[in-house]
Amino acid sequence: MITSASNERVKFIRRLQERKARQETGLFYLEGLRIVAEALETGAGIEQVIASPDLLRSPFGQELVSKARERGLDVLEVSAEVFARLSLKEGPQGLAAVVRQRWMTLEDIAPAAGRPWVALDSVADPGNLGTIMRTCDAAGGAGLILLDQSTDPYDPSAVRASMGALFDQQIVRAGFEEFAAWVRKSNCAVIGTSDAAEQDYHAFAYPDPLVLLMGSERQGLQPHHLALCSAVVSIPMLGKSDSLNLAVATAVVLYEILNQRRDRG
Amino acid sequence: MITSASNERVKFIRRLQERKARQETGLFYLEGLRIVAEALETGAGIEQVIASPDLLRSPFGQELVSKARERGLDVLEVSAEVFARLSLKEGPQGLAAVVRQRWMTLEDIAPAAGRPWVALDSVADPGNLGTIMRTCDAAGGAGLILLDQSTDPYDPSAVRASMGALFDQQIVRAGFEEFAAWVRKSNCAVIGTSDAAEQDYHAFAYPDPLVLLMGSERQGLQPHHLALCSAVVSIPMLGKSDSLNLAVATAVVLYEILNQRRDRG
Repeated sequence: MITSASNERVKFIRRLQERKARQETGLFYLEGLRIVAEALETGAGIEQVIASPDLLRSPFGQELVSKARERGLDVLEVSAEVFARLSLKEGPQGLAAVVRQRWMTLEDIAPAAGRPWVALDSVADPGNLGTIMRTCDAAGGAGLILLDQSTDPYDPSAVRASMGALFDQQIVRAGFEEFAAWVRKSNCAVIGTSDAAEQDYHAFAYPDPLVLLMGSERQGLQPHHLALCSAVVSIPMLGKSDSLNLAVATAVVLYEILNQRRDRG
Repeated sequence: MITSASNERVKFIRRLQERKARQETGLFYLEGLRIVAEALETGAGIEQVIASPDLLRSPFGQELVSKARERGLDVLEVSAEVFARLSLKEGPQGLAAVVRQRWMTLEDIAPAAGRPWVALDSVADPGNLGTIMRTCDAAGGAGLILLDQSTDPYDPSAVRASMGALFDQQIVRAGFEEFAAWVRKSNCAVIGTSDAAEQDYHAFAYPDPLVLLMGSERQGLQPHHLALCSAVVSIPMLGKSDSLNLAVATAVVLYEILNQRRDRG
């Protein structure tokens, strides 16, 4: 059992909190009984399980460690003190994992009926990004296309907010020009949102398949984005607010798309 | 101009980052050109404006300070260094305010047609709470009823996420029993949400007026909450996720309520 926080393997795991280390290694860190259980279930590329026997008291947690060992996974045992140094949670549960990131390219994916894609331009807040993954999964979306300078979906805040949807949603990274070429080639409808659009999001009949394109928190959709859209819709705002939180706006439109599909039967 | 961060007035303002100090004083801190402008516009109870002339370079910002002075408000000038100590932002803009909290009680409010109330049980995350304020404002809601152990809507993260909706939404704090008595007396419909409910949120015809009751992030609605509901609805989740972020779930139902009202004309 590792009892020193200056152990090289422990330092390697801690560095995964930084984007640079995640980019260099292609790995990320996740923590908690439930999310490690999901990673084991979905066959996510677990490289290592980190367990602290002193903290990991529940039979469920111990069973997860046994399962990992049976699969031949590397299980690193650390003391409660070392685990606390790795942990990003209050009240750490004593189970974490180092997992391989799973990126796709536009060449790997195709528009599919009934499974909208969400394209995000330069999303800045990892919590927003994680919440959008979770919502996209719940609303039947296929995955996220992260355009240009988007924050990292493997940031600890994004991983936490995604609540496991990270393992089910496909994640694509692309530059705008590449995305525009993919849209033209696949002949897929792109629906944008903007508070300046005249078309009400609820009165609009959504095509299928589609990509829902959302602008960044600060800037919204830019002219080159709007030029790619077959339609741009707005969500009505009755109060003094002139915008919605990005994850909220994405959710409101995704559920409208789902409801229209359900209404059609 | 104050140039020392250990000045008593500066220390007083910094303490407002703590819930205890906010409770004792009934004040809170907010920061940024836009939100201070909104506070000035809406006649929020500004007790003090904090300005750092070195940072506050835009004509708009300087005009706000003049406006505050014309109204006889106390304007505290501080150096850029002192402002940075007070600031909770990267790239502080040099304008902040100390504002009086504005709480209401259930006795002050009544259900009103077309303006749903949102009741939150023990909401834990101030960012969620702020986002719900912002969404409630946009979706035409009347305000929030914070039940039992809810986090503080005047927490800096809640204030930031509310994007000014804090000044427009009515905020009520109440214990559950008091809320239940108000519901019975006012004969108002309470609609709950639960992933276990059979009633689909989109197929349900919402009464008007109503209170939308949302459970806490961790626990959802408890039996005593469900017993108060005239209906409980669920949002379909098609993926592996078995829940939505609280602010997202609230938004999805609030916009469904708004859409139904709009569809009826």
